Amino acid sequence: MCQELTIGLDLGGTNTEGVLLTGENETAVRRSIATEADGGPAHVIQRLADLVDELVTAGGCDRSQIYAVGVGAPGPMSYASGVILHAPNLPDWKNVPLRDELCAATSMSVALENDANAAAFGEFVAGAGKTVNDMVMLTLGTGIGGGIIVDGRLLRGSHDNAGEIGHIIVEPDGRPCPCGQRGCLERYASARAIGERMTEAIRSGESSALRRQVDSGRTIDARDVDQAARDGDPAAMRVWDEACRYLAAASVTIQHMINPQRVVLAGGLIGAGERLLDSVREHFRRLTWNSAPDGPEFVFATLGIDAGVVGAAALARDAEIMSRPSA
Amino acid sequence: MCQELTIGLDLGGTNTEGVLLTGENETAVRRSIATEADGGPAHVIQRLADLVDELVTAGGCDRSQIYAVGVGAPGPMSYASGVILHAPNLPDWKNVPLRDELCAATSMSVALENDANAAAFGEFVAGAGKTVNDMVMLTLGTGIGGGIIVDGRLLRGSHDNAGEIGHIIVEPDGRPCPCGQRGCLERYASARAIGERMTEAIRSGESSALRRQVDSGRTIDARDVDQAARDGDPAAMRVWDEACRYLAAASVTIQHMINPQRVVLAGGLIGAGERLLDSVREHFRRLTWNSAPDGPEFVFATLGIDAGVVGAAALARDAEIMSRPSA
Repeated sequence: MCQELTIGLDLGGTNTEGVLLTGENETAVRRSIATEADGGPAHVIQRLADLVDELVTAGGCDRSQIYAVGVGAPGPMSYASGVILHAPNLPDWKNVPLRDELCAATSMSVALENDANAAAFGEFVAGAGKTVNDMVMLTLGTGIGGGIIVDGRLLRGSHDNAGEIGHIIVEPDGRPCPCGQRGCLERYASARAIGERMTEAIRSGESSALRRQVDSGRTIDARDVDQAARDGDPAAMRVWDEACRYLAAASVTIQHMINPQRVVLAGGLIGAGERLLDSVREHFRRLTWNSAPDGPEFVFATLGIDAGVVGAAALARDAEIMSRPSA
Repeated sequence: MCQELTIGLDLGGTNTEGVLLTGENETAVRRSIATEADGGPAHVIQRLADLVDELVTAGGCDRSQIYAVGVGAPGPMSYASGVILHAPNLPDWKNVPLRDELCAATSMSVALENDANAAAFGEFVAGAGKTVNDMVMLTLGTGIGGGIIVDGRLLRGSHDNAGEIGHIIVEPDGRPCPCGQRGCLERYASARAIGERMTEAIRSGESSALRRQVDSGRTIDARDVDQAARDGDPAAMRVWDEACRYLAAASVTIQHMINPQRVVLAGGLIGAGERLLDSVREHFRRLTWNSAPDGPEFVFATLGIDAGVVGAAALARDAEIMSRPSA
């Protein structure tokens, strides 16, 4: 069992996940710890190193059998230098050389990866993309994260910023986005956008069963809109349908640019179940060309929150750039 | 000089270009012939074989020194089987096994490639993309063709239809496109679209120096619009600016999806010169995010019509699928 083992860590603002992954992309050991982000970068990095030790011990392995550690982390980072530039959910993380410091703390080779890319790669090697060569993943949460796999390889791009599908423009000069653009996909089809657009519809006078919730000052989220739409609320049905239409239009753009076999949907919004998939597929069929039957299959992610940590471990196996311990 | 030679052909509706390319991507010999498409597929394939012979002779080489022939061709095709499904500019071309038949006619290994992909790869190895690893090319003509190079490799996609950037959706449920979609980029920013939008503006009552041309029934093309815009015609300036805005919005989507170092503009529209580049760059700066300085450089293609034939020859060198002559 201890051949070609790697360790994957997924650093989150609240919790950090860890796995020991076999060469067959099977999870041998899984652990979760509190990140304790308030303790600052040095404290967190020591906790990551302790988690690595715990995974090795629980796996009954020798440290020398671990090929490398892959870390998925949030926020803009430099893949080339292994530095986290800043991270919205980790106070005091500014220009932290996470890769070098974790390498020093563990005496293991360490690769650093964007957490959205890691999640996409996890689904690719062990989840919804396991049987294909090309896939695009969209993680529909507060924002929309993305990851692109082409011919079995993660597409990083020249500044490590490929796959930022939440910020492709679906409506030129449309709704403003905190990123500085207007008309980004995530302003129309993320879980947050769905709640916001429903609130706006009600405030602008549209009648809805959710009006009382808005009037009493409670936030409407995508789950509320989904439930109201299931109950036949016309405004909720329209808002939900519009989000699916934008996801489908973005998928047509993905189809013509990348031409993947699968588009994998992940994140909180997929709690809505088959209704979401059906609606995206229906809009896609309506919106795509009739030249060739080359559209992707739409499927849900299957690994849930494990995707990131599995992907980080799998990416460590063939990372092009790593920090390596001095001999 | 005769090391690692390949031959590239670019099959067009009117003319067919041919080159003998060195291993350093230098054009050793160049020839152009009339395609004589009216003669039908068998006649055209014999002409291609004769052109191959002519290139070999003119290069002073032995046939055994030619590693392979790459053919760039128009129309939907199957890369896997080397068959042209149909071709709008080549009468009677339906399911033509061009790769196998040219292989039989020349006794050389033959690879078949989409002509837009071949042109992008030509610019990549010998033109505007020579010094980078990742680039996207947009060919702005009657339609908009595209080609994507990632990490030095052509992105083909799972159905060989990646890089169809003319058909990404820039305006959901926007202007109808012959492909069956609505709101495709090429309906807003191709040379044809610019002429059509100008004509529509005048017909809907906008005043313009080009009105007389419309009234007399003469077609307005992108060159007319460009010239009128230079002369200060407000309607022409608006139409031209709008096309540049859509090109820039599409480039933001390209930036976030692929994150290339360069976006290379090619095709008839680049005859407008630096004004076009300046306007696209200006809209891009306005439309893109402020998160990271990861936008592409915008440059013009440098090889002109040679791009396709050079790319076809270069792609033949590392084609994964070829027809090979029986020994």
